[in-house]
Amino acid sequence: MFIAKVVGNLWATRKHKSLDGAKLLLVAPADPMTGELLGEPVLAVEKNLSAGIGDMVLVIDEGNSARGILADKKAPVRTIVCGVVDSATVGGKTCKWH
Amino acid sequence: MFIAKVVGNLWATRKHKSLDGAKLLLVAPADPMTGELLGEPVLAVEKNLSAGIGDMVLVIDEGNSARGILADKKAPVRTIVCGVVDSATVGGKTCKWH
Amino acid sequence: MFIAKVVGNLWATRKHKSLDGAKLLLVAPADPMTGELLGEPVLAVEKNLSAGIGDMVLVIDEGNSARGILADKKAPVRTIVCGVVDSATVGGKTCKWH
Amino acid sequence: MFIAKVVGNLWATRKHKSLDGAKLLLVAPADPMTGELLGEPVLAVEKNLSAGIGDMVLVIDEGNSARGILADKKAPVRTIVCGVVDSATVGGKTCKWH
Amino acid sequence: MFIAKVVGNLWATRKHKSLDGAKLLLVAPADPMTGELLGEPVLAVEKNLSAGIGDMVLVIDEGNSARGILADKKAPVRTIVCGVVDSATVGGKTCKWH
Repeated sequence: MFIAKVVGNLWATRKHKSLDGAKLLLVAPADPMTGELLGEPVLAVEKNLSAGIGDMVLVIDEGNSARGILADKKAPVRTIVCGVVDSATVGGKTCKWH
Repeated sequence: MFIAKVVGNLWATRKHKSLDGAKLLLVAPADPMTGELLGEPVLAVEKNLSAGIGDMVLVIDEGNSARGILADKKAPVRTIVCGVVDSATVGGKTCKWH
Repeated sequence: MFIAKVVGNLWATRKHKSLDGAKLLLVAPADPMTGELLGEPVLAVEKNLSAGIGDMVLVIDEGNSARGILADKKAPVRTIVCGVVDSATVGGKTCKWH
Repeated sequence: MFIAKVVGNLWATRKHKSLDGAKLLLVAPADPMTGELLGEPVLAVEKNLSAGIGDMVLVIDEGNSARGILADKKAPVRTIVCGVVDSATVGGKTCKWH
Repeated sequence: MFIAKVVGNLWATRKHKSLDGAKLLLVAPADPMTGELLGEPVLAVEKNLSAGIGDMVLVIDEGNSARGILADKKAPVRTIVCGVVDSATVGGKTCKWH
């Protein structure tokens, strides 16, 4: 599980049918205090949390967790947004994102 | 889940029987805006999406997802193409691939 | 499984309901002898072990283990604190953390 | 799933009983066109494919796939050889390995 | 699956109850020919193989394999020692460890 910043969207018409309707986000690992990007973006599915570009999010990278959130036991999904960061505290300092 | 560019094909006569008929692609993680390759190619299976060399694709790296797409509960597969990128939007710019 | 140092906390109001009540920690891989951080922090869930900032902890990164510790078969969790380090011995030297 | 070159063998008398009879190979990620090694060797199990030192192979790193190939539901195995590369095509050039 | 050298021990009184009695080792990925360490140590569980500091071991990083070796379907374990290296052969040279 890692903290990431939503940096983009992705569209794909030709895809496995279980992914129809899924919102595809590009999320890059990020420092929850500074927002600095720490790596290349990966592809994450988002549902019901209304996370969008610029949001700092919690990402989980496990198939069973992702399928549970989508309530679809067979979806080919592994990486999913499971929360939106309000604030982070490191070294006694707190940084608010919402 | 990550975005990758199809960079090659692979043939293997001597392989586990569950992989017979599977299309084996070499896919390298890539920047969905510039197409720049971001790492070494890995091996992905492709079925029914007609993805080929030069395509920008969605790749998922999880056994249960891969076996679901192949509709084969026992296939020794982990990495599979699950979509073909139409376009990506990052920083307000949109890049079309199809 | 790896050794990490708890370096921060995270709050998220808008998150998947299965994560309600979970304590979210930022943990960075660390050298168990010197405490030196060896990588970027990841997000780990903590329950019942009272681990807090500055503690050296055992972290496991697997969904089934994490769901077992939370006693919730459906929680979207993968990374969890499963112990608190008392001491480590490397090269004949012992370093106590508690 | 990745392409690797078989670079060595390993022997272990004292091992978990489920691994008795398993052939243990050291396989290093490799470029399928040039054979250049791209990383440190990992340990892979091989069965029925007669892959040996110098062969370019397909490697899968997932427990259920590995246990399926060994036809042993309980074997502690994760990395296994699932094919032997005949040839690879990248950038219009084809490289034959068998 | 990878080859590692046992470089240390770890003690943790406050840990998940399923880990009681488990031997916790620090194991670092290592070159099976030279013994040179190739990365930072991770935490591995050891049972019944009497592996100790200085031993070259086979390590598997998968939950189901680890729980099978511990014969505990619910243990929060992912990384476990599954063998002790006797000897390795690379490039025609053999290196004995036991």
